[in-house]
Amino acid sequence: MGTVKRSETAPFIISEGRTRYLGHTDNVMIAVVEFNDGPAPQPDPPHSHPHEQVSYVASGKIIVIVGEEKTHLREGDLFTVPANVPHTIQTLTKQVRLIDAFNPIRKDFLKKE
Amino acid sequence: MGTVKRSETAPFIISEGRTRYLGHTDNVMIAVVEFNDGPAPQPDPPHSHPHEQVSYVASGKIIVIVGEEKTHLREGDLFTVPANVPHTIQTLTKQVRLIDAFNPIRKDFLKKE
Repeated sequence: MGTVKRSETAPFIISEGRTRYLGHTDNVMIAVVEFNDGPAPQPDPPHSHPHEQVSYVASGKIIVIVGEEKTHLREGDLFTVPANVPHTIQTLTKQVRLIDAFNPIRKDFLKKE
Repeated sequence: MGTVKRSETAPFIISEGRTRYLGHTDNVMIAVVEFNDGPAPQPDPPHSHPHEQVSYVASGKIIVIVGEEKTHLREGDLFTVPANVPHTIQTLTKQVRLIDAFNPIRKDFLKKE
């Protein structure tokens, strides 16, 4: 897989109003996550995974909580998540798009899609 | 480093009209690369590196060349670059923003910024 065209993808439905599509090499993955179900009244439940993560806010506004740190972010901002640290977001706008980069790749995502 | 706010960064100047800023954990890095010098009459010279790369086109239109494969991409599209494969882009619009994810991290970028 060398390129993934948005117009030719059928994004995976994570839940109602939330989708993602993927691109990856052996050791790095990007998940493009689109939220259309915001704004959320409260943060999603925190989750964690052994994969390190860096995320770019491509559109919308969020609160991100990483460990004990809570920050307001908007388009152009980044957040980082070390392995196994609980984290979550709260969408503050109807639409949010996050570009989530992972190492190692999320093989659990590949199984579903 | 948990978060990087665009409004508080002083992006590194790669060359006239091109900047980047970074976020990273130990093993995954995102470089937000902004081109304001397009459209380019031809592709940049190809380059390669041992770091695996997945890139998201956040804005603008490009031609990407990875190895022998040449593809037109636009906002929302992804491309992937295995380790050590020559690759380059040609900007087709004045402004292009790429979200480049790397593993391992680009320590060469950290030295400069």
